[in-house]
Amino acid sequence: MIDELAALPGIGNKSAQRLAFYIIGMSPERVQHLSESITQAKAHIHYCRCCQNLTDTEICPICSDPARDRTTIMVVENPQDLAAYEKTGKYKGLYHVLHGAISPMLGIGPGDIRLKELMERLQTEPVNEVIIATNSSLEGETTAMYISKLIKPAGIRVTRIASGVPVGGDLEYIDEVTLLRALEGRTEL
Amino acid sequence: MIDELAALPGIGNKSAQRLAFYIIGMSPERVQHLSESITQAKAHIHYCRCCQNLTDTEICPICSDPARDRTTIMVVENPQDLAAYEKTGKYKGLYHVLHGAISPMLGIGPGDIRLKELMERLQTEPVNEVIIATNSSLEGETTAMYISKLIKPAGIRVTRIASGVPVGGDLEYIDEVTLLRALEGRTEL
Repeated sequence: MIDELAALPGIGNKSAQRLAFYIIGMSPERVQHLSESITQAKAHIHYCRCCQNLTDTEICPICSDPARDRTTIMVVENPQDLAAYEKTGKYKGLYHVLHGAISPMLGIGPGDIRLKELMERLQTEPVNEVIIATNSSLEGETTAMYISKLIKPAGIRVTRIASGVPVGGDLEYIDEVTLLRALEGRTEL
Repeated sequence: MIDELAALPGIGNKSAQRLAFYIIGMSPERVQHLSESITQAKAHIHYCRCCQNLTDTEICPICSDPARDRTTIMVVENPQDLAAYEKTGKYKGLYHVLHGAISPMLGIGPGDIRLKELMERLQTEPVNEVIIATNSSLEGETTAMYISKLIKPAGIRVTRIASGVPVGGDLEYIDEVTLLRALEGRTEL
């Protein structure tokens, strides 16, 4: 059990040992409950057929919500990024989860992320804007450029979330690349 | 001496005491040198007559550099922010240092920052763009809006540096306000 726990991300040998001793001290019912919740989650959680987010229904609650704007799709790298935007409560469109980003360094090509599924959606759904919200990393930017080149010929508007100084940020403590990006991306007031 | 040192920012009582004992242990020449460098700096460093940055010449090296683009002025809150942009090595225009930001909360009004000096420059220099690079805080935004309203009637282009996801940033760990700003400020790809 210690080896299995230590193989999880963010859990080292010491933590694994502490968890293991704690689990052994738990009541049999609680242990049963924990173990079942793990197998059940794995058995029932899968990718939404539409946006590829994790869900326990065939179509996830966001995709099946009639109140969402079906003409806009925000493309994100993973379910955590979707959750971050969903927490703002202001974005009313749909999402598409790529489950990764293109990385020539790690050998991850366009075929290894859920791009094909996005292209299929664009052919069947009434989308007129794709907002690319991949991370502001080398991989995220590469993926954004690739998707943009793929979609634009279809006449769909492709936008990229802004890169710049975070809100509340003090210029003095911000890295040079971000400062330059903020300067290049300046907008009319 | 301990009281004087402890009154400086970032130096607490303990640090002040440690510094004081160190200074007492220094050679008389080094102490003399330290003390003189402090009075000399205070005596010779003043505000550039043009951009209000700190300098030991009447006009600072940036303002007197013939290679700089005199048609663009970047407005910053303080000399540290100017230094941050100068470190990028890519911005070739001039600057204007406000030495503060408008803050109704702290009772700092437009008359308390070096705005009058900026307006005077706009009347005598051939400026066609003012880039407002105040911080992305409440005070910075208030100042940006105020300056914009003041300058725009003169027909000068007023821009604001972009607010958004910092470069290399992972969406998952970015605050909600910044995520929304990045969404609002999205650009065409």
